[in-house]
Amino acid sequence: MVSMPLMPVTDSMFLLVETREHPMHVGGLELFEKPEGAGPNYLSELRQRLREDTNMRSIFRRRPANPVNTAGHLAWSDDTDLDIDYHFRHSALPQPGRIRELLELTSRWHGTLLDRHRPLWEIHLIEGLQDDRFAIYSKIHHALLDGVSALRHLQGTLSDDPDDLDCPPPWGSRAVNGHRNGRAPQPWFKTAGKTLNQLAGIAPAAYKVANEAFREHTLTLPMQAPKTMLNVPIGGARRFAAQSWSLERVRAVATAAGVSRNDVVLAMCSGALRDYLIEQRALPDAAMTAMVPVSLRAKTDNGEAGGNNIGALLCNLGTDKADPADRLAVIHKSMRDGKRMFKQLTPLQVLLLSGINVAALGASPIPGVVNSTKPPFNLVISNVPGPRSQMYWNGARLDGIYPASVLLDGQALNITLTSNGDNLDFGITGCRRSVPHLQRILTHLDTALAELEFATR
Amino acid sequence: MVSMPLMPVTDSMFLLVETREHPMHVGGLELFEKPEGAGPNYLSELRQRLREDTNMRSIFRRRPANPVNTAGHLAWSDDTDLDIDYHFRHSALPQPGRIRELLELTSRWHGTLLDRHRPLWEIHLIEGLQDDRFAIYSKIHHALLDGVSALRHLQGTLSDDPDDLDCPPPWGSRAVNGHRNGRAPQPWFKTAGKTLNQLAGIAPAAYKVANEAFREHTLTLPMQAPKTMLNVPIGGARRFAAQSWSLERVRAVATAAGVSRNDVVLAMCSGALRDYLIEQRALPDAAMTAMVPVSLRAKTDNGEAGGNNIGALLCNLGTDKADPADRLAVIHKSMRDGKRMFKQLTPLQVLLLSGINVAALGASPIPGVVNSTKPPFNLVISNVPGPRSQMYWNGARLDGIYPASVLLDGQALNITLTSNGDNLDFGITGCRRSVPHLQRILTHLDTALAELEFATR
Repeated sequence: MVSMPLMPVTDSMFLLVETREHPMHVGGLELFEKPEGAGPNYLSELRQRLREDTNMRSIFRRRPANPVNTAGHLAWSDDTDLDIDYHFRHSALPQPGRIRELLELTSRWHGTLLDRHRPLWEIHLIEGLQDDRFAIYSKIHHALLDGVSALRHLQGTLSDDPDDLDCPPPWGSRAVNGHRNGRAPQPWFKTAGKTLNQLAGIAPAAYKVANEAFREHTLTLPMQAPKTMLNVPIGGARRFAAQSWSLERVRAVATAAGVSRNDVVLAMCSGALRDYLIEQRALPDAAMTAMVPVSLRAKTDNGEAGGNNIGALLCNLGTDKADPADRLAVIHKSMRDGKRMFKQLTPLQVLLLSGINVAALGASPIPGVVNSTKPPFNLVISNVPGPRSQMYWNGARLDGIYPASVLLDGQALNITLTSNGDNLDFGITGCRRSVPHLQRILTHLDTALAELEFATR
Repeated sequence: MVSMPLMPVTDSMFLLVETREHPMHVGGLELFEKPEGAGPNYLSELRQRLREDTNMRSIFRRRPANPVNTAGHLAWSDDTDLDIDYHFRHSALPQPGRIRELLELTSRWHGTLLDRHRPLWEIHLIEGLQDDRFAIYSKIHHALLDGVSALRHLQGTLSDDPDDLDCPPPWGSRAVNGHRNGRAPQPWFKTAGKTLNQLAGIAPAAYKVANEAFREHTLTLPMQAPKTMLNVPIGGARRFAAQSWSLERVRAVATAAGVSRNDVVLAMCSGALRDYLIEQRALPDAAMTAMVPVSLRAKTDNGEAGGNNIGALLCNLGTDKADPADRLAVIHKSMRDGKRMFKQLTPLQVLLLSGINVAALGASPIPGVVNSTKPPFNLVISNVPGPRSQMYWNGARLDGIYPASVLLDGQALNITLTSNGDNLDFGITGCRRSVPHLQRILTHLDTALAELEFATR
């Protein structure tokens, strides 16, 4: 951009509020199986091909024109001399190359700030998994794409055709490569395009609007969330854990109990949180509350006209109840009653709401306030619809795509999941200091699902 | 520390002036050969042993008590619940595992900020070198140890005895482990201890003193440095390159030419800078100037009483001369004439002087000033004496120990070297944006030494 226009507030605010304790980037971890017949040089050749690929979405060339100026008037500039070897990184797991080592490295990467002198992204091609799979970790600043849009961007680079070898690089665009075989893209991919367009069109006052909306409603919140160890000021380091569960198992519980699949997912999270907090000797007496972003698009919409309306439900997680079936019933009732906080939120506003009580966002600049006030909810649990069929990327089979989220003061844990073919892929992001042994939540999620299966058998 | 005393200004200023463009940590890259007979589990066993080692120097437990407060009154606090897995990291090189991949990873690590919510260090144990060696990269905040002290700290964890298996971890102390075989430590190690003690005793006004000293002398600087591509504002990302040269080759040139070994080192740097800047079409017409910290301890001192007096010479590098012998003669004369800028500087002041013209240090807070004023010198070239014999670490042979330095606005390149047994180990730290193809300087150093050998044959 020659004229260096000022950034819309919807972009710049994520740069302005970012501190080393609150990195404002979102992440995604993709796990792939190499295509059949891949030789020993598959990854080095893939890397070389990607380095030379000229397909790059314009947002991946953007950088703040004046990175040091924090006076409020930021502008975007195009990086005309992009250093691809800085952004696209070749990385490896130490021995023994388990998922554990992959998550450890992802945790490290997710906890460091992006360099504002450059376009605000880093993407790692990762080798050294003991089962010969490979992984891609993508880190994109929230000023470029919100979490949902970033996930959809990544999903948009995939194909449901294992023979489609024209998939764009993780920073590229389908619009450039087109479709070799002429088939239409998935509906969710079209929607993703819409989301992006509409995000760009958000009114500059979005932050103000969301803030005021929340403040007006503060006293009329439909339920009170107890103070927990998850609702504390956070540090900059992160822990990230990820795992897939069979969609079929979740669907079977939903059918048997006569509830929605999302209810079952929330009950899994509830059971896991309860077990985790008992282990930490930190389970609150009162039931915990989750903020659950939900799509408000009517089911009859065809996706073209649906737009991007998102609401937020406050869900009673029933963590005070020992019985899994009781928790599921509480969650189902809470979601059915629909104590909707706000209608027609944008993804931006959803994120803002989740951190509204935060020093970093200017709502309460006095240190310590997070410690003394009750949180509006205990955590955000976000379920983002993804592709319905098995996806591939240039012939490599996608085993999982796990979202890594932004954390804010007072919200030290985030659970975001996405459907992906026959699986639900969970990404759990936590503050490394406040949420010890985060990976235990994976075990507890597994236990919680098994308990729900048993309870509804 | 129970009472959380305020930090001395000499510590806190490095926290206060740190920005994402000016990370204030120093680094060291150590390259080791595994001991004879090391099995396939050598590194994982080593890692486990180090994780459990309780030997930790007290500075490695210190963290800022109030990391978010930048109002000027910082205090140190002890981390009573240190998360060793955060600080001590297991890392691996991607294929093919050459020194090139090691330097690429080191560059990345050296360009990210340390987390102020924790003790200000990270140490990586690195596997995956194709020749089966291993490496350790250490990153320590300047508020804990200056560059020279950090290097000496690392050297102090080594032993000249291959059978000494009681070496402390990189964050440990000899004082704790003692010497299994009762032999005295190396003299340079004793000196290092002194350095550390005296650094702690620096007057709080060190910064002010150094600043004023410089300003008073501005108009009487013995020479003018030309403006070069190395004297520009910098970004936060780094490039790091490292290589060893035989001390014997340098010594032979020095003897043949009747100059000091340090003169030959400076002539290597001069030749390399000239070739690099010609390649970049950026060689200035006038000769470049290096700031060269030198020890002022009289040779007759026994090391016990010597203290920590450092001076700074401004050396004419003769980069305007095409002939290597001419450059060496200019450098020898310049160093011999001893145009000493300041006497009795502390390592802290040396660092301050190197960045004195810098927005980040408050001397010139107006953006752009670095672009428009002439630099006091073009770069710092620092030669730190190290151990004279071959060193080992718990039986692993040390092949090299390479210093990675702090950069500041206006000083986009730093060359620091240390003697190490029969070698000189060079570490070259550059701003990733301002100094492209930094690794070319290694090739040019090699050429420069060969040319000097030819010229003095």
